[in-house]
Amino acid sequence: MKTFSMNQLERYPAYLKYFKELRDQGVEYVSSPRIGAKLGYSEEQVRKDLQCVSVSAGRPKRGRSVEQLIEDLETFLGYRDVSGAIVIGVGHLGGALMNFPSFNEMGLEILAGFDVSPSLIGQKIGGKEVYDYKRLHDLMPKLNAHIAIICVPASIAQSVVDSAVCCGAKGIWNFAPTHLDVPEGVVVETVDLASSLAVLSHRMNEANAKKR
Amino acid sequence: MKTFSMNQLERYPAYLKYFKELRDQGVEYVSSPRIGAKLGYSEEQVRKDLQCVSVSAGRPKRGRSVEQLIEDLETFLGYRDVSGAIVIGVGHLGGALMNFPSFNEMGLEILAGFDVSPSLIGQKIGGKEVYDYKRLHDLMPKLNAHIAIICVPASIAQSVVDSAVCCGAKGIWNFAPTHLDVPEGVVVETVDLASSLAVLSHRMNEANAKKR
Repeated sequence: MKTFSMNQLERYPAYLKYFKELRDQGVEYVSSPRIGAKLGYSEEQVRKDLQCVSVSAGRPKRGRSVEQLIEDLETFLGYRDVSGAIVIGVGHLGGALMNFPSFNEMGLEILAGFDVSPSLIGQKIGGKEVYDYKRLHDLMPKLNAHIAIICVPASIAQSVVDSAVCCGAKGIWNFAPTHLDVPEGVVVETVDLASSLAVLSHRMNEANAKKR
Repeated sequence: MKTFSMNQLERYPAYLKYFKELRDQGVEYVSSPRIGAKLGYSEEQVRKDLQCVSVSAGRPKRGRSVEQLIEDLETFLGYRDVSGAIVIGVGHLGGALMNFPSFNEMGLEILAGFDVSPSLIGQKIGGKEVYDYKRLHDLMPKLNAHIAIICVPASIAQSVVDSAVCCGAKGIWNFAPTHLDVPEGVVVETVDLASSLAVLSHRMNEANAKKR
């Protein structure tokens, strides 16, 4: 299997989004220079990125078929095979994720939430039930959920992840600001707001220093 | 000014978090191998990363002072100079960010929210007022906010960012899934959930393919 760099993988949803905009505008073909100019990537990079995921070559002058690119990218990104997910920890952030309207288009279906708080258990958020966390072992396999979205405090994240893996999780989407250990065959992807904020602050300082 | 790679910058909050845990446990000194083993980085990388931000050298055998490392990292990350921020778009995600308890420790103080929805205007979320978006030009300079946290739909994000920049924003923390153009001297850092999810799906597919 071809190995992709994280940066490259991260670019594909932006391509897909742009191609869908083009389709909505009735555009049928698009060239690499046009794509690059729109998204801020070099023409060379666009060509390389698309070669990796799309079998159909572009034609000189006309460019690549927008419809074909959308199909290839959706297949590559797994948006056409929907994975079932559960949210563990339905606080402000977990609740916001359960309410997100567009995960389904990205191949992720949130099936349920789990929490320990009596005020949340039994509620519906984004149309999905919040269950007692005690029932994870019973319900997660029944729901056929293979992704656990972790929105609990950092201090308990590892033990929650251990349970989720035990119940069949193959992917952990981690919003807790902590490093997690998982067995081989299970993957973790962390969304780290603290890291993102650190990058923002540092780049603001740089921009400020340049000005002076 | 030294240039840091994004990956390197993103590691610093993890270091800081670990050093604070050590301090809470009463640990005074820590060695690079121990740090690397805990966080999953090589000893060499830990040494390089810390050299860039900390003036104090470690001592053979004993290691580096935990207290000094915390001070150096907090200074480097700007956690000791708090920046004022506003949230534009107080939907599920924007509301969750306004409720986040720990941004203050990371040098970010959310001062207010802005929205167009009459049901939100005048409410308090996380103790901060939500104002009518129409009042941005009037209030953002008065609040002395230099960071705008963008939680509006992608379709209107660019025009909201243009307004925020016009009102003095120097940093844009973007949660809208779209590319944003800003003038020189203003920086954008995007938290892209679609990209993160694409990385997770792809790595799950890879892990699955390896198993077969």
